[in-house]
Amino acid sequence: MSESQSRLDLFIDRMVSQRTCLDFAIAQTTGMPGPVFELGLGNGRTYHHMAQRIQDRPVYVFERAVASHPDSTPPEDRVILGDVRETLPASVDRFGASASLIHADLGGHNREKNDAFARFVSPLIEPLLVPGGLMVSSDRMYFDALTELPLPEGAVEGRCFIYRR
Amino acid sequence: MSESQSRLDLFIDRMVSQRTCLDFAIAQTTGMPGPVFELGLGNGRTYHHMAQRIQDRPVYVFERAVASHPDSTPPEDRVILGDVRETLPASVDRFGASASLIHADLGGHNREKNDAFARFVSPLIEPLLVPGGLMVSSDRMYFDALTELPLPEGAVEGRCFIYRR
Repeated sequence: MSESQSRLDLFIDRMVSQRTCLDFAIAQTTGMPGPVFELGLGNGRTYHHMAQRIQDRPVYVFERAVASHPDSTPPEDRVILGDVRETLPASVDRFGASASLIHADLGGHNREKNDAFARFVSPLIEPLLVPGGLMVSSDRMYFDALTELPLPEGAVEGRCFIYRR
Repeated sequence: MSESQSRLDLFIDRMVSQRTCLDFAIAQTTGMPGPVFELGLGNGRTYHHMAQRIQDRPVYVFERAVASHPDSTPPEDRVILGDVRETLPASVDRFGASASLIHADLGGHNREKNDAFARFVSPLIEPLLVPGGLMVSSDRMYFDALTELPLPEGAVEGRCFIYRR
């Protein structure tokens, strides 16, 4: 990161990297039968992107309260409502280790809080992935058994992370 | 716009175009003495970018209520607080036709509302620009005497607009 990068530069790098890594991970997991999990819906832009490009697998969204753009609101039966501290453990019972792709952009503006949350939530995410499944995150995660992959061309180092089980 | 563009694609195009057009307009107006106006602060990312790259002129921010990221909050004497329907006309008295660069990203999610607001606010913006001054906007504006410029390389048609007085 150059010292002359503005917050706008960093934000654009993050959004472009997120899209590049997601498109790579969607292509890599095509043909795998397991569901896709989007952790956090927010405005719904990224969900819209994933739902448009993933036709072969269901995309479930984990969210506390749906407040997305009307164009990007998932069907009710694809929303898993609640705090991820509870809904992720419950999903291990429901889905087992079956997810082909998990994406998370949970982070807010506070870097320390993001990192603490990433440490907390990593062991809750890890058991949901099927062997060979991918996890894409805007924050560095803390997994025991997953392997960090090199980023695809066009993604910016440190702005996105990809892990494989 | 391709039919297969997601909301994430559109958003990235808009942010990249905004930065490209702003950098072009900053370069084009370097050496002009008049102030720079940012209409709407929001999260403050774009203000951060402008304040970092514009060292030769004051950057004033028009905003109803400052709620920006702490890193991107302008000094108090550079904030013009209030509704732009009132603060823009009042600024004609204060500054005259002196602004070298005006940037606006006023739009929300509703395209019709954005367009109605752009029509309303265009005649309030126009008298603030010095001859030769530039206006950069994320929405199409409705000016009487300004000329729309071709976009610089890297900006996406329809995602940003540049006008010269």
